[in-house]
Amino acid sequence: MPAEEPTPELRREKEHDVGWLTPAELRTWMAFMAGIYVVDTALDRDLRTFSELSHNDYKILSLLSNAPGQRLRMSKLADLVFGSRSRLTYQVTQLERAGLVRREECSTDKRGAVAVLTPQGQHVLRTVAPKHVASIRRIFFDQLTDEQVKVLGEALLAIIAGQGWAKHLEGAIERELMRGENEGEGKAERQARS
Amino acid sequence: MPAEEPTPELRREKEHDVGWLTPAELRTWMAFMAGIYVVDTALDRDLRTFSELSHNDYKILSLLSNAPGQRLRMSKLADLVFGSRSRLTYQVTQLERAGLVRREECSTDKRGAVAVLTPQGQHVLRTVAPKHVASIRRIFFDQLTDEQVKVLGEALLAIIAGQGWAKHLEGAIERELMRGENEGEGKAERQARS
Repeated sequence: MPAEEPTPELRREKEHDVGWLTPAELRTWMAFMAGIYVVDTALDRDLRTFSELSHNDYKILSLLSNAPGQRLRMSKLADLVFGSRSRLTYQVTQLERAGLVRREECSTDKRGAVAVLTPQGQHVLRTVAPKHVASIRRIFFDQLTDEQVKVLGEALLAIIAGQGWAKHLEGAIERELMRGENEGEGKAERQARS
Repeated sequence: MPAEEPTPELRREKEHDVGWLTPAELRTWMAFMAGIYVVDTALDRDLRTFSELSHNDYKILSLLSNAPGQRLRMSKLADLVFGSRSRLTYQVTQLERAGLVRREECSTDKRGAVAVLTPQGQHVLRTVAPKHVASIRRIFFDQLTDEQVKVLGEALLAIIAGQGWAKHLEGAIERELMRGENEGEGKAERQARS
């Protein structure tokens, strides 16, 4: 973030000069756009080797699993996964056929239809998750130093905060960390008992 | 990247322990997934205020503009923008109706159909680009320090290199930098002449 508010003259000059990114910015921007594509493609390819799920299927099940009551409005889910609805309907129909998701239509409000994770969906997600996390580690974290992991997180959080989504994300991270701890304890207890 | 190759014992332990990300990793991973969504949504919202294009439309025109002969196979384009073909056909049809893209079907090989940027498409892209770049700057770069921009780029390039795409991306960055320089010169010359 700029250390101080630019003067009106400086700001005008800056606005005038925004037609191009600097070489350093261009590199980072193109790496960001390509990185999204490369990571998504690699995770998708891995998932298909050890599960019946695509990366988008995984995202849908994972978002439902983290939602209160393990359910989300179709419109909300579409927005989070695709930014559009048409493809979600197809994808949820496939997950419904596989028994992983149940759709509850709302007779009075078509836009109010919700997707609900089934116990079978929860089971598949739990089975696939450790391999998917191993895949995330190999594709993403094994390539980075601890310092890069830290700076990457801080930079992306700053961008998210700039759009007013920081609280939302911090809440989701907190819930995920608590869930991990609880499940970790559960695992430890199971091991202690066995 | 690890400084040294782990011993078989260490590697086994590591593999055994990949079920969860560390809290620092989880923060960065969730910020990455959320960051993709937040940046895409914000750029899309901005584009619609000053153009008739969605962010995906812009990506299609921009990819075509950077391709040799300003043309790409539909299958390649679909892969780069959506990871699937069905939605691209719809989107390219819309761009074709607006006169921004021309489709050339291949009578012998349906999979060989190509999308070509039209002069009108090139014109719209050039008109919209400066405002889109200003939008990228406001949403993305104004939130980051120079150091964060640098580390973010290096980290994403390391991930991309891990998947064997580094050369491909470096080439694309070089072409984009040269294009920027050439167009920058063109502008300066036009200004000098007027």
